[in-house]
Amino acid sequence: MTTPKLRMAMIGGGRDAFIGAVHRKAAALDGQIDFIAGALSSNPDKALASGRDLGLPADRNYPSWRAMLDAESKLPRDKRIDFVSIVTPNDTHFEIAAAFARAGFHIVCDKPLCHTSAQARELCDIVSQTGVVFAVTYNYFGYPLVKQARHMVRQGLLGNIRKVIVEYNQGWLATALEKSGQKQADWRTDPARSGAGGAIGDIGSHAEQLVSTITGLEVEAICADLTHFIPGRRLDDDANLLIRFKGGAKGVLIASQVEIGHENDLRIRIWGDKAGLEWRQENPNELWYKPDGQPVQLLRRGNAYLSDDAKAATRLPPGHPEAFFEAFANVYLGAAAAMRKDPKASIDFPTVYDGARGVHFIEKTVESAASDRKWTSAQWKP
Amino acid sequence: MTTPKLRMAMIGGGRDAFIGAVHRKAAALDGQIDFIAGALSSNPDKALASGRDLGLPADRNYPSWRAMLDAESKLPRDKRIDFVSIVTPNDTHFEIAAAFARAGFHIVCDKPLCHTSAQARELCDIVSQTGVVFAVTYNYFGYPLVKQARHMVRQGLLGNIRKVIVEYNQGWLATALEKSGQKQADWRTDPARSGAGGAIGDIGSHAEQLVSTITGLEVEAICADLTHFIPGRRLDDDANLLIRFKGGAKGVLIASQVEIGHENDLRIRIWGDKAGLEWRQENPNELWYKPDGQPVQLLRRGNAYLSDDAKAATRLPPGHPEAFFEAFANVYLGAAAAMRKDPKASIDFPTVYDGARGVHFIEKTVESAASDRKWTSAQWKP
Amino acid sequence: MTTPKLRMAMIGGGRDAFIGAVHRKAAALDGQIDFIAGALSSNPDKALASGRDLGLPADRNYPSWRAMLDAESKLPRDKRIDFVSIVTPNDTHFEIAAAFARAGFHIVCDKPLCHTSAQARELCDIVSQTGVVFAVTYNYFGYPLVKQARHMVRQGLLGNIRKVIVEYNQGWLATALEKSGQKQADWRTDPARSGAGGAIGDIGSHAEQLVSTITGLEVEAICADLTHFIPGRRLDDDANLLIRFKGGAKGVLIASQVEIGHENDLRIRIWGDKAGLEWRQENPNELWYKPDGQPVQLLRRGNAYLSDDAKAATRLPPGHPEAFFEAFANVYLGAAAAMRKDPKASIDFPTVYDGARGVHFIEKTVESAASDRKWTSAQWKP
Amino acid sequence: MTTPKLRMAMIGGGRDAFIGAVHRKAAALDGQIDFIAGALSSNPDKALASGRDLGLPADRNYPSWRAMLDAESKLPRDKRIDFVSIVTPNDTHFEIAAAFARAGFHIVCDKPLCHTSAQARELCDIVSQTGVVFAVTYNYFGYPLVKQARHMVRQGLLGNIRKVIVEYNQGWLATALEKSGQKQADWRTDPARSGAGGAIGDIGSHAEQLVSTITGLEVEAICADLTHFIPGRRLDDDANLLIRFKGGAKGVLIASQVEIGHENDLRIRIWGDKAGLEWRQENPNELWYKPDGQPVQLLRRGNAYLSDDAKAATRLPPGHPEAFFEAFANVYLGAAAAMRKDPKASIDFPTVYDGARGVHFIEKTVESAASDRKWTSAQWKP
Repeated sequence: MTTPKLRMAMIGGGRDAFIGAVHRKAAALDGQIDFIAGALSSNPDKALASGRDLGLPADRNYPSWRAMLDAESKLPRDKRIDFVSIVTPNDTHFEIAAAFARAGFHIVCDKPLCHTSAQARELCDIVSQTGVVFAVTYNYFGYPLVKQARHMVRQGLLGNIRKVIVEYNQGWLATALEKSGQKQADWRTDPARSGAGGAIGDIGSHAEQLVSTITGLEVEAICADLTHFIPGRRLDDDANLLIRFKGGAKGVLIASQVEIGHENDLRIRIWGDKAGLEWRQENPNELWYKPDGQPVQLLRRGNAYLSDDAKAATRLPPGHPEAFFEAFANVYLGAAAAMRKDPKASIDFPTVYDGARGVHFIEKTVESAASDRKWTSAQWKP
Repeated sequence: MTTPKLRMAMIGGGRDAFIGAVHRKAAALDGQIDFIAGALSSNPDKALASGRDLGLPADRNYPSWRAMLDAESKLPRDKRIDFVSIVTPNDTHFEIAAAFARAGFHIVCDKPLCHTSAQARELCDIVSQTGVVFAVTYNYFGYPLVKQARHMVRQGLLGNIRKVIVEYNQGWLATALEKSGQKQADWRTDPARSGAGGAIGDIGSHAEQLVSTITGLEVEAICADLTHFIPGRRLDDDANLLIRFKGGAKGVLIASQVEIGHENDLRIRIWGDKAGLEWRQENPNELWYKPDGQPVQLLRRGNAYLSDDAKAATRLPPGHPEAFFEAFANVYLGAAAAMRKDPKASIDFPTVYDGARGVHFIEKTVESAASDRKWTSAQWKP
Repeated sequence: MTTPKLRMAMIGGGRDAFIGAVHRKAAALDGQIDFIAGALSSNPDKALASGRDLGLPADRNYPSWRAMLDAESKLPRDKRIDFVSIVTPNDTHFEIAAAFARAGFHIVCDKPLCHTSAQARELCDIVSQTGVVFAVTYNYFGYPLVKQARHMVRQGLLGNIRKVIVEYNQGWLATALEKSGQKQADWRTDPARSGAGGAIGDIGSHAEQLVSTITGLEVEAICADLTHFIPGRRLDDDANLLIRFKGGAKGVLIASQVEIGHENDLRIRIWGDKAGLEWRQENPNELWYKPDGQPVQLLRRGNAYLSDDAKAATRLPPGHPEAFFEAFANVYLGAAAAMRKDPKASIDFPTVYDGARGVHFIEKTVESAASDRKWTSAQWKP
Repeated sequence: MTTPKLRMAMIGGGRDAFIGAVHRKAAALDGQIDFIAGALSSNPDKALASGRDLGLPADRNYPSWRAMLDAESKLPRDKRIDFVSIVTPNDTHFEIAAAFARAGFHIVCDKPLCHTSAQARELCDIVSQTGVVFAVTYNYFGYPLVKQARHMVRQGLLGNIRKVIVEYNQGWLATALEKSGQKQADWRTDPARSGAGGAIGDIGSHAEQLVSTITGLEVEAICADLTHFIPGRRLDDDANLLIRFKGGAKGVLIASQVEIGHENDLRIRIWGDKAGLEWRQENPNELWYKPDGQPVQLLRRGNAYLSDDAKAATRLPPGHPEAFFEAFANVYLGAAAAMRKDPKASIDFPTVYDGARGVHFIEKTVESAASDRKWTSAQWKP
């Protein structure tokens, strides 16, 4: 049985962009999504040139997202794009997402969702009013063994969760790379485009989301120490947090971009009163399970002993490693299933609410870092 | 600048097939290849149904590869398919590949290439007569760090190669799985469809190709012990070989499908008189370099210190792991560049000659296993 | 040339004790120390019985440390013990060490040194007045690759230190083991015997010492969260600290005894502006060095490329693993060299000052945990 | 209760020797053996000087093993040495061991036991006639997790053994080190002192013993390829073997001293029809168990879930790593328990029969390497 393909437009992601190409490959991987329209840069000429590079048809290669919104809104339902994928710098997410969602288009939006909790609340309101699907590409959510970990926690294999250590170790900003004109470094260290958080926003938010996904724990209070080690850098490049979760669990969150020798080292360890779990993004096909008093077990992606949702998120047999693109594609698949209201597919992706909670987390971390009090209340209410 | 897409037809790979879907995703990953035609099963009804599943246009959804060959040959050059991807069981590769190559279509063919050296020679002859591009999907060839290893050997960092240990450890045939009706197990343990080699053909041939790619060494003589541990199994499920290479290097090759707990564990260690190298497919983003008298070095995919061809074979920055699909896609990209005669692209993929050498290797291994002499001459001449 | 052996007496470490036997094996390993006297328990009968078990001569098998001090003080210099090894519960260290040091005996004392900074200061004063050698068995100090790490930091290979993450992960107190009568659990969770710190005192102090040894950094301020997860437990079983070091470096220190599946997992990561380092006690023969922009290097114990002090601390060639006992023995060797005033030996062991700094660290951590202010000043002055 | 100490004499192991010091530390570790006599070199002056270095009493510091044999034999039973530890080059083992065993002294002898099977048979005969304890220091036998592996095989957890891969990878002879005057390299590459095997004798024999210990399998036939990669070297520095075991199991044995970057990398993998096992000497506190269809399990030394003999061979709790010396000491402890006829101690050590089987294995490997036939019968009969 053929599944009709969804029509995707992309906003941002033109020439020289990194993450746009990742989104396009991820969206294309399973043959369920066609990339048919774009407004690929805030610069109209660059937008159009980028669209031509990628073979977009001329009539849907837009000079701006406003032009796209205007034109696509006028097309009949069965012709127009199903959703936009927003991969612009963080400061523009809110305006674009709000506009398209209000117009009834589904949204896939990069993280962090937006700059302020007020914006985030407004996006949540629009979603609840319009009923559009709104996915936020916390891509690490898509790894099969993250789903397995979540499953094991939900099943009670860990017992009551006591402690979480989550780390996101990077080293690429250990020098003043932004002064060299490197595009990624430039905008990610610029508060106007990145928001109030540097490392904590860019990668700490992934760490927060991973904890939330796997454990379901809610942050109650935060004690943060934010540092920038590069003189003149305007945002933190190193963040260390103590966390108290509702119910008594304790956490440590480390997010750094000056830890030389670490590439994209997101890792999490969780302990309950029955067992522990450990997972690392750079070796994503392995999950360590540590039941009390017994040998440690190594669970590997693709095996029959895994949970149904971990198996459903897998495309290859054991030992044929899957990685970053497939996890990213799983977020698109989850969103696509929701857009299609597919009753059979598991609808499982990070939503606008995850995005809003993430923005709140960044805000509270920055607030805590500026405070002399040990603990800053940080509970988020949807 | 837009690259015109290549038009791919697939033969085999219909409903229930595993590897066909892998080929399609790999071919699609980089947006350079359109899958537009198919003859997806030897059963015409199943072929057509499978094509409909995948959204093939009715006029290019063929009931058989002969029908496809006939129809496509009649289309004008700029409409007809550029190449066929042959993913049928091994016993049919020869006939299909020979027919399409003779008709001037480029070929991407699964491995092993065919059943006999006589067939292999004929395919080589056709290729040299017609000039078609003929890629054999030794997919592990496509990993960036395999290219890095080859580069380091070629640069002389290892000195003269002395020893190679290559292993392909699997455990999925540790029971009589073929009696359960499992499709993969069924045809892979059937000499009529798989050829003379079991484990040695299915996975030992990958191991042989990996050695050849990285080291350039030529096999001179083989001493093989082939076993089937499952009573009644008609092909080897465990192969252990001593190898002598031209020039004096020694080798050990292990290919097994009864090593419980191993999934798809292809690994290689190489030593010269200056240094050693080690790589494992299940952890493909890491390469170990062991210079004499110095600390071992861990090279990781995506880093600036790697060779140009290793970097060109990469889509993501360090720490964002790439895996099986991307390596597979690299073989398609290499073949596609050759089909387009792209002067800028690195043309780098396993060819019909690699395939022929592999068939010869399987034949000589089986011959050695049946022999009482220690060494069976096994040199291959293109 | 024969080295005359040193005469050791042990206080504590009788029947059922764990750490006493470790000290005895460590002291004996290199044939430089003879164990010739003991007061092996606070219970006189048990003390004498334990001494008989271990073959102590009757006249130096003492019922109490006071009896030993009395008798040995009366012996001529060339007969009496050279030093006492104090392996009693923490609450008795001060009194015993002070008495023997005042009487001019050298001291090897288990950690933590004592209960209060006032006691620690007094011990330091006695040492400076009497000139006795006073070693504190921070045994992890003795690992060759810890010395290598210290050497690399001192050589400037890391540049300016920016960040340290040190962890001591254990899981053995994840249940209320002290209620089962287990001796170790019983006294280690009892403030009267252990002092103000639970996990932070027992293992967090090792972590602090490791940071100090390798980096030379001085703690400036601490922000601590101490928890006991077992209801009714009277001391922390989980400690998470943010640390600010003099000069601007930041730290995270984690010490836990409820992390199920972790055994004795002391590990440290250090980053400067040029490189990073990583070491784990459970795999002590490996040290990871991460120079910026280059492949990670794996340094292994026993190799010629290591520093002189790392090589001097080694007894076996590379690949013949050394472990816990040898590191422990190195602390004894260092203290023994100092006792002998051996001009050739490298005199290198943790002293009473390390012990005093550790007691201060525990006090300040407990103070911080009880405080609502984020940062508690914690600088230590010798 | 005090255990009376055993009196050990050492033959060989004087100044500059490596392995003698290892034996002395291993023998001393547990306080059950006193080193009281020696004939520490074949050069009488060096022998005496070495004994003085080590503090031997003058009257038992012998200029030669013959002098020792003579003098000790005349002492009353309760004064004379209990056993000799023979750590001389291989070529002298036979004569010394035979003489002392005939005189009723127990023996601990380094491996390989002797040069020829005829000698080995004679030693076995002497042992059965005299009833002396005769241990051969296959030291890797002493690791707790080797005992655990043996236990699991005996318990049937692996089912019928199908395959063994055992490797002993070293790189220290990758250059012509013997020409530099390095003492170890000099005698180990000299057939007169080392015997007919180079790498196969020095380290391949350890690999053979490890297989025998854990699996109990008996070698039936061997197909060997021996190489020396250094021009002019008189013994193999690289050995690769195919093995057929009685009962149908297959094996691969690799022993090399030219694999640059490998230090002392003895490792073994075993598969049965139910599960697999994996252990590595360089990381000896971990054992991997791979039950079919379930997650891989990591068993770690010191845990309660291990077998009794694995626990009895351990001195430290989990996570406090043990290593080479402790394993070596376990062989001494096993031999000592046998000498004492200790009914409570587990008597478990490699005997003269293991040594004899090892000599036979080396002989048959060398014979196979010289043969054109694929398989050389190699069954050993005690």
